[in-house]
Parts: sequence; C-alpha cells; structure tokens
Amino acid sequence: MAILAKQSYESLTEDTAINLAKELNLFPEHASLSCSEIGDGNLNLVFKISDRITGTSVIIKQALPYAKVVGESWPLTIKRSTIEANALIKHGEYVPHLVPKVFAADEHLAVTVIEDLSHLEIARTGLINGAEYPNLSKDIGEYLAKTLFLTSDFALHPFEKKRLAAQFSNPELCKITEDLVFTDPFFNHDSNDYEPELAELVYELWKNTDLKVEAAKLKRSFVTEAESLLHGDLHTGSIFAGPTETKVIDPEFAFYGPIGFDVGQFIGNLLFQSIVRTGVKREKIHTHIKTTWDVFYSTFSELWESHNIEPFSKTEGVKEDFLQKVFKDTLGFAGCELIRRTIGLSHVKDLDGIEPKDQRILLKKRAIELGTALILNRSEWTSITDLIGRLEEDIS
Amino acid sequence: MAILAKQSYESLTEDTAINLAKELNLFPEHASLSCSEIGDGNLNLVFKISDRITGTSVIIKQALPYAKVVGESWPLTIKRSTIEANALIKHGEYVPHLVPKVFAADEHLAVTVIEDLSHLEIARTGLINGAEYPNLSKDIGEYLAKTLFLTSDFALHPFEKKRLAAQFSNPELCKITEDLVFTDPFFNHDSNDYEPELAELVYELWKNTDLKVEAAKLKRSFVTEAESLLHGDLHTGSIFAGPTETKVIDPEFAFYGPIGFDVGQFIGNLLFQSIVRTGVKREKIHTHIKTTWDVFYSTFSELWESHNIEPFSKTEGVKEDFLQKVFKDTLGFAGCELIRRTIGLSHVKDLDGIEPKDQRILLKKRAIELGTALILNRSEWTSITDLIGRLEEDIS
Repeated sequence: MAILAKQSYESLTEDTAINLAKELNLFPEHASLSCSEIGDGNLNLVFKISDRITGTSVIIKQALPYAKVVGESWPLTIKRSTIEANALIKHGEYVPHLVPKVFAADEHLAVTVIEDLSHLEIARTGLINGAEYPNLSKDIGEYLAKTLFLTSDFALHPFEKKRLAAQFSNPELCKITEDLVFTDPFFNHDSNDYEPELAELVYELWKNTDLKVEAAKLKRSFVTEAESLLHGDLHTGSIFAGPTETKVIDPEFAFYGPIGFDVGQFIGNLLFQSIVRTGVKREKIHTHIKTTWDVFYSTFSELWESHNIEPFSKTEGVKEDFLQKVFKDTLGFAGCELIRRTIGLSHVKDLDGIEPKDQRILLKKRAIELGTALILNRSEWTSITDLIGRLEEDIS
Repeated sequence: MAILAKQSYESLTEDTAINLAKELNLFPEHASLSCSEIGDGNLNLVFKISDRITGTSVIIKQALPYAKVVGESWPLTIKRSTIEANALIKHGEYVPHLVPKVFAADEHLAVTVIEDLSHLEIARTGLINGAEYPNLSKDIGEYLAKTLFLTSDFALHPFEKKRLAAQFSNPELCKITEDLVFTDPFFNHDSNDYEPELAELVYELWKNTDLKVEAAKLKRSFVTEAESLLHGDLHTGSIFAGPTETKVIDPEFAFYGPIGFDVGQFIGNLLFQSIVRTGVKREKIHTHIKTTWDVFYSTFSELWESHNIEPFSKTEGVKEDFLQKVFKDTLGFAGCELIRRTIGLSHVKDLDGIEPKDQRILLKKRAIELGTALILNRSEWTSITDLIGRLEEDIS
C-alpha cells in the first residue's frame, strides 16, 4: 500500500485531490482525470476521481478536523482516518469481499484512498425505498462472525490481541458513542432531540429506574469489555448494498469492544424497518433479522471449531454460554440504538421520513417501547425466534 | 523523581548498586554506604543500600530478564520494572500511606528505587506464624477501594482512563496469570504440581464441566474487562505488614482488569489461613475477610458519592448492581486462587508447610472443594455474611 511522504494536514480541493491521485500512481501516467466532491461535508471530504477515457475511478476520503452536526461544529481528531484505514485493512484480511479495497492511506493528510463503490447504494436508503437486498443479512452475518471471532482472544495470541487493542484505542470517537448512545437519551440533556408529542413517553423513560440500571450496565460493557475489534458504527448507513454485493464502509469508530454492540447496532437498524413496514414487506425484514443472527451464529460456531486456540473452547457448554451472552448484549445494544435514534441527537430517515405526522409519532412511540423492552427483557428472550415472536405480537 | 541518563541493561552487583545510589544522590555526598543483595533471585535482584553512619537505607530492585521457577528459567520482559514503578506511583497518588515511596526509576536498567520496608514482615509469613496485624484488612480494604475506584471510568475522564489502560498494557505478565491461574489447573497440563494423594479429586475437577464453563467465564472476564488499574498479584506475599502499618508492594502484574480480581486474590489468600486455622485464630481470619469486604464496600461507596463523574451513578440501584457484580467476581477469582495454589505450578506455604502429611492432604482437599464451591455458587452467595457462614459450616 502506497504511503505518501510525510506532510502536514491541509484540506484537499478537487484540484489537489487529482494531484494526489497522480502522485500515488493510481491511474496510467497520462490519464486525463476528473474529480468531484460528493460528500455531505459533515465529517469528511469525499472525492471521486475518474479516468475520462477508461471510466475507472477511485474514492479519496479525507477526514475534516471538525464535525458539523445540526449546524454546530466541534473539533474532532483526524486520527480517526488512520483508525478507519487500519480497520478496513484488518477486517479486509478476513472478509475481503465485504469491505472496500484500500489503495493508499496517509496519516498526516488524514486521507484514505478506497475502491469506488458508487454502483451500489447506501442500504438504509435502499431499504426505505423498498429494496430487498437478498444477500444483505447473509453477508452481514458472515462479516460480523468473521471480523469479530478472528480478532478475539479465541483466535489471536494474547500478545497480538493486546497489541491490536492498544493500536485501536479510539477515545474521542468512543466518547461520542458513550454520550450520544448510552447517556444523553436517558437523561434530560441538551443534545436530545424529540418531537413534542413524544415528551410524555420520554419523561417516563427518564424516570424508569429499572431501565436506567440496565442502560448503565450496557454502557459499562461498552467502556470496559474489550472482546473484539468492532466496526463501532454498524448501522445501515455504513453499508453499501446491491442485488448481489454488500460492502461495509466507514469504520472510523473501530475499537476493541463487546461483540454484541456491532450485532446489535445492525439488528437495531433493521428493527426500524420492522417498525415502519407492514405485511409481506415486514416479514422480509424479519427474515433479514433472523438470517443475520443465524448466519452469525453458524459462522461463529464453525470458526469456533476450526480456529479456536482457547483450551476451554472444547468444554461442553462454553460456546453456548458465550453466544448466549452475545445474544443478550445484542438485544440490549439494539434497544439502545432504537431509543437514541428516536429521541437523541442523531436520527434515522426510516422514522423521520414517515408522513403523516400522526403515523410518525405512533411509530416513534413503538420504537421507544420496543427499545425499552429489548433492554429490560434481554435475559428472558433467549433466541432470535423469541425476538421475532415479540415483533409479530406487535402487529397483531 | 530522578531518572538516570539512558543506558543499556546490565545486571547490578553490590558495588554497582552503590555507585547507582551515589549517582542518584540518595544519600549525603560523603556517606559511607554498604550494600547487600537480599532477594530470592527468582525474578529480581534486591539490593539494600545503607548509610553506615545514620543507618538510613533504600532498596534498589532490578528486574532480571528471566524468571526462575522450579529450577527452570525462561525469558521474561524487563518492561515489568517500568510497569511496577508506574503502578506504585499511580496508586501512590491515591493511597500514599499504603505503598512504598518511589525515589527513582530507570526503564533501561529495569531498576526501581524504593523505601526500605525491612522493619515490616511479609504478611503471608506473619499470618502463618500467628501474627494478628489488626490493621491489615482495614488497610487493604481501603487500598482496594481507592486504587480501584479512582482508576475506573467512574472517576476518570474517558480519555485519561483509556490512556492509562494503553500505558499499562502488560501482555507478558498477564499471560502468566492467564495460563497459571485460569487455564492449566483446569486441564491435565505439565505445569501442574499436586501431591499424588490429591489425584482423584484433581481428575474429578478436570471432568467437572459446570466448573469449567464458569472458570472459562472468569478467564474471559480477566482478558476482556478493563475496569480499573489492578495490582494484578495481590496475594499476602505482596504485602508488608506490621502492628500498625501495611504496605502493598510488587505490582509488576498491574494492568487494566476486573476489580474483583484484586479483591478476590487477597480474600483467597486469607482463605488459606481460614482453612489451616481452628478456633479463635480462625475467627480472627474471618473477621479480616469480613472487614476487607466491608471497608472496601463502604470506602468505594463514599467515593461513589463524592467522586463519581458517571451520570448513571445517581440512579437508584446502579451502585448496588455494580458492587454485587464485583462481589460475585471476587468469589469466583478467590476460588480460582484456591485451586491454582493447591494443584497448579505456584504453591503457598500456608498449605505446603502443614505437617503431618495426612493433615496437609486433608486441608488441600478442603481448599480444592472450597475453591470449586466459590466458583460454582458465586451468584447465590450474595453477601460476605453468606461466605463467612459457608466457612463456619465447614468447621462444624
């Protein structure tokens, strides 16, 4: 992988992005290149560089030294660019077909050069528009099992695992999750953002001591349990999908954390679609949810048999005990995702895009209630069938 | 704190240790110094340097680049010396009266210069000989609560906690614990060392699937749960004690791990004395065990009220939930300590010193059975009174 000569940070423009592509020899020497910035400008610049003759293209992504959310901007480390590139490369060792290729990265410019995936669409957008993505859940189940098993203590020598855990220490981005997912939505905090019609339910939630005790446990798990190298932000907006392909992008929140967090964030984001859909379309989402867990479980189990270096792995019951713990965590983290995306700072279009308003408020209430139930009942619902059963009760 | 000019590692002798003391200006310029090496030579050299006139003295401890156990020697990182010095300094910020003063440290020589504590005795030796140490459990309860609370996410900004967790990454020494405490004793492994009369009970233990599922969970907690900066090896041989003073030494195994591991190792080592004692002397040990937990609990609770930066800490039930988890972990880790010190590589004189042999075998069997019960019942015994009750049943 090409690494640029050390230089200091400066924001790229379309012209300097082309120069960078040339310097990196990403195209033939005399290629005529065009460039357009296609990012949303909140966190990163995203340049698409194309060869006018052959039509081949690459993406140059550059982290901005600040984040813009709801019009405000605050400083945000550009080190996240290095974390992202390293996580793509590390996960790419295990699931090269499910992550973009990384052609180059530069720490000082906070730049990652990756495969152009613009023939695919963002899974969230596609799902909202009714796309089916028949391989989505199978692919993500495989992605989760392989990246999470193979970076865990079950597969890595303890020295290598601890080296990676230190390398992927990611305090700044973890803090965003600690605040926006695990803390603010459970308190009357300025960062929250909910429609006035939800106020009563939100006040109840803030007074629900049992729920807060459980949310505190989940937060503690997030800040203390270094199980595997997580993606760290695996919602449906971090996935490119198409009729046959799936690519997981944007792992800038990667760090060593609890396995159930990645699984739970993905399932949590499918649950928004379960909430907003009806009939056969809803069943298709439930099939995706079940397939995600089933493929995760079976692939993880295969790796457990074939790649496990932990002597206790051969003891009857140890695998089941561990995967039960992951399932319980998954439900809890999915619950947190449902709540925070409904009443916290950062929303999802799955809910916010619903019209008319009455219907939207009704569905948002369901999201809060389902999130609460997932957090509170995660020890009782012991299989994915229990979860699907609970979802089907809702509709009947 | 003085830091020597960078130099490469070489083993000190009594002469070069004196030169080092002079270079560090630890004594008046023209002091006449004497030196004797007082270590057991297994892991470290320990030099006592004294001023012949004033009688003042310091200890120079140097890590050896190998460990000698049962006649064999294997390479062992000298970085542990830096971990030890940094842990003494960090814990010393919170409990200066309970750890030795550090006068100097040098990473390249793997040297730590500390307060001479030879007016005190090693607590294990004293307890075996019947010493009472009226302050021991109160002091260790305070040491545990303060060092563990104040290095946790409850007290530190997440950036500082994660910085310390990376700084105290200690893979080599953690691996010793992972192998010798959490793995080998539960399998037919070469490193185990038990008397032939225990063989039947040991074979039963290796076939006890329920026990192994629970031991696997405890091991997983040890390798994944970065709660606090632990001492990492808090047995009674790591404590200097006297009639009024207590000093915790040797934190070379320090790392970010589960709080219950430190609490459990200390209580586990008191349990050996519970096993070998009778009558009033036994009750005194039970009082020490109860006081350790009670002082830990009350001091941790006070810090929770006064120093907690976690918003959930004000929610009713969160503290109780957390301390219940710590108690459960404590019992489990104490159980592992009882088992590994009886049948694993590294034994304790509390048991090995018992004569006649029949009595020793009987008590070792009790240690294995109590260890097993602690691991299996740690969710049922929910208070220190439950534990003491179980110990008293044993004697009746």
